[in-house]
Amino acid sequence: MDQVLKDYLCDAVSATDMAMEGFLPTHDVSPGSIHEAMRYPVFAGGKRLRPVLCIAAAEACGGSRENALAAACAVELMHTYSLVHDDLPSMDDDDLRRGRPTTHKVYGEGMAVLCGDALLTEAFAVLAKASPTARFTVGDMIAELAETGGSRKLIGGQVLDLEGEGKALRKEDLIKIHEAKTAALLVCSLRLGAMSANADATELHALSEYGYSLGLAFQAIDDILDVTQTTESLGKTAGKDEAVSKATYPAVWGLEGARAEAGRLTQVALDALKPFGAAGGRLREIAEWMLLREY
Amino acid sequence: MDQVLKDYLCDAVSATDMAMEGFLPTHDVSPGSIHEAMRYPVFAGGKRLRPVLCIAAAEACGGSRENALAAACAVELMHTYSLVHDDLPSMDDDDLRRGRPTTHKVYGEGMAVLCGDALLTEAFAVLAKASPTARFTVGDMIAELAETGGSRKLIGGQVLDLEGEGKALRKEDLIKIHEAKTAALLVCSLRLGAMSANADATELHALSEYGYSLGLAFQAIDDILDVTQTTESLGKTAGKDEAVSKATYPAVWGLEGARAEAGRLTQVALDALKPFGAAGGRLREIAEWMLLREY
Repeated sequence: MDQVLKDYLCDAVSATDMAMEGFLPTHDVSPGSIHEAMRYPVFAGGKRLRPVLCIAAAEACGGSRENALAAACAVELMHTYSLVHDDLPSMDDDDLRRGRPTTHKVYGEGMAVLCGDALLTEAFAVLAKASPTARFTVGDMIAELAETGGSRKLIGGQVLDLEGEGKALRKEDLIKIHEAKTAALLVCSLRLGAMSANADATELHALSEYGYSLGLAFQAIDDILDVTQTTESLGKTAGKDEAVSKATYPAVWGLEGARAEAGRLTQVALDALKPFGAAGGRLREIAEWMLLREY
Repeated sequence: MDQVLKDYLCDAVSATDMAMEGFLPTHDVSPGSIHEAMRYPVFAGGKRLRPVLCIAAAEACGGSRENALAAACAVELMHTYSLVHDDLPSMDDDDLRRGRPTTHKVYGEGMAVLCGDALLTEAFAVLAKASPTARFTVGDMIAELAETGGSRKLIGGQVLDLEGEGKALRKEDLIKIHEAKTAALLVCSLRLGAMSANADATELHALSEYGYSLGLAFQAIDDILDVTQTTESLGKTAGKDEAVSKATYPAVWGLEGARAEAGRLTQVALDALKPFGAAGGRLREIAEWMLLREY
């Protein structure tokens, strides 16, 4: 990876981590157990892709990292809660995440449910601290996050995913799941960043297009890595998708077909950035970096 | 119960139900299964105490039911999600609620987790539709709800409750649990209603005092009913608290002591309404009615 991009990602991640450190109560706030449990999945070395996209989108629209940080933390908290709940025994039943035991393995199942609930609630608490702009109120931003996290998108995607297990899914079913489960929150991250920068309708539209294709490309690559990588290098159980007959890009497109599709989607994402001209440089680099990650 | 109060409660409940009917997606919106599951605990004949308090507080502050409805639905959705998750096998493991099988009994455990998540998210989506007033933005209202639902209050109370099971708790531990688990959301319901009516600091303070004592009185009465009533009349498993050695008002104060405490708390709640004068009449009636419910 280019050193300039590497430094940029590193700075965005540490700014997000510092902000999150300030937002989340520590273990000495009662009840200490839930605050310890909440910090466990949040500070687990995630890539912070959603905060990075949020910040980069704000900057592409002429805004600042500073003003995007509340939204950046909110989308990461939303993402983290969804991982904690998706890993539960009653859902995907995963023991390993980012190289460590999953939250319910460490704190028990009841506490993991409450931990996810608390992270989800905290996402809205944090976003409520965002600053309004000339075009957008905090209520507009909350509505955007709630719609994305709701039963038609993020949660709906997990429902379709659970219901699809073991079934022969068509391409359009698979895309519908990934739109809802993955692409929607990337789109939301970009849009909230843009809203913090008082973006106009053209910018928001372009970012939605970019995020949609980037999200599907990201999922295709994730699915490919699940097949080609070891549990150790992934930090989560490799081969899990195939074991539970999940519909994945390689399962539906074949491995080479999935790689080609990831490349095509990345190109569509890059094309969507045209209205930004030079200001879209960082978002372009992020898309290219994502396509090339470890495979 | 007085017929005028009965009619008032009935009207408030049906206005809330109609609004909720409009907010929640129907079964024909994809994925249909989650939308069916979400409606199951919401339309289960709950008392709608929190919406009623929200609307009555708005009116006591000179506002309208109309303007309080988004907040009324939001607090009820927050309450309903917490019941769905608290009933899960990994938490209180309850099979019966409001006379019907609990959500996880009907839709399975994974779906019940997602259903709760979706109702919680919907609470914020609905509150984001509230109208700002001269003193309060929608962001202020969201912050109020998120703080109440978060790890220091609603969720924290459930954590303390789970951690306290089977332990000999002191009065102050019990009060701490009920403050967080019950009183906080009643206070929030009242405050959000008041905020929708552009209430001033004196009004908000008085309603917080009222809601706090009312919440503890409500919990004391709930605990008493758990001991004195049958499963059939309660609509949930009677005697459950004692079976799992939960700290309750009768367990800590004795049955007669708990009744006296409920009466004392109700009086404190009534006293807190003094600043409202005649405008506090409805809230006074609600507190008196609560104290006298089926026991």
